Amino acid sequence: MIRKLLYNDRSQLVKIVEETENFSPEEKQVAIELIDEAINNPNHEYYNTFVYEEEGKIYGYHCTGKRALTDGVYDLYWIVVDKKTQNKGLGKKLLDHAESFVKENNGRWILAETSSKDNYNATRNFYLRNKYSIVAEIRDFYKVSDNLIVFGKYIK
Amino acid sequence: MIRKLLYNDRSQLVKIVEETENFSPEEKQVAIELIDEAINNPNHEYYNTFVYEEEGKIYGYHCTGKRALTDGVYDLYWIVVDKKTQNKGLGKKLLDHAESFVKENNGRWILAETSSKDNYNATRNFYLRNKYSIVAEIRDFYKVSDNLIVFGKYIK
Repeated sequence: MIRKLLYNDRSQLVKIVEETENFSPEEKQVAIELIDEAINNPNHEYYNTFVYEEEGKIYGYHCTGKRALTDGVYDLYWIVVDKKTQNKGLGKKLLDHAESFVKENNGRWILAETSSKDNYNATRNFYLRNKYSIVAEIRDFYKVSDNLIVFGKYIK
Repeated sequence: MIRKLLYNDRSQLVKIVEETENFSPEEKQVAIELIDEAINNPNHEYYNTFVYEEEGKIYGYHCTGKRALTDGVYDLYWIVVDKKTQNKGLGKKLLDHAESFVKENNGRWILAETSSKDNYNATRNFYLRNKYSIVAEIRDFYKVSDNLIVFGKYIK
């Protein structure tokens, strides 16, 4: 089941983030900071975090937040699946859930920022497979030769 | 002269923001929140705020911040000139100063998000005149029919 983040989930989520080989140390740190923000401010409107849980074990999570000054744009900040559980459709279930959450909150856009680097190939294909399109690209963004690619889905 | 924000500048800056006819109530609120963040965390690396002052009177300010996970992308969050002092070249002086600040901090990109609405025509022309180009555009962003336009300048 997919349910809201609870206080006691922290250690399992941190472990999932730490074990994600694709993340740089800085990405791990930012992801964990965001988990802590969400846990310490459960009614916070910025970081809506949901976990995929089965019998007490957590296999992944997503985190979205409404962009300031917009009336319906949501950033998908993180969508992470336990590396031992990859390719079992969990990412798709989490993504569908994130989109439903955005729709329920009268969102129009869901946006996901990714990198152009080779090790994000699978991530980019994941968004394309799920009918996201590239809405923006900025060269030399994360680093020189590492571009920003923004995937977006317009939700009606 | 252009100098770092000081604690006592708050009331003058709030007045400048409040009197900016182009800003919606929500934009004014976000701008003031950011001024408060900067004032209360003067060593905060996220919100670098500089004011244009002459003999104790403040005529405008700019605020930039490095984008998380990037090693050289700065957002120009706000650049605001007192409405009674518009069209006297102050905006250009503030923008040049913001760019120098970014350069000194090893920034590559300076990005400014604006709206496609008619009342932001002068703002868009200001960026184009100062050699910014449109690096991204997302329709129905702030509201339906109110697009995001991201201006960017690559600083070598």
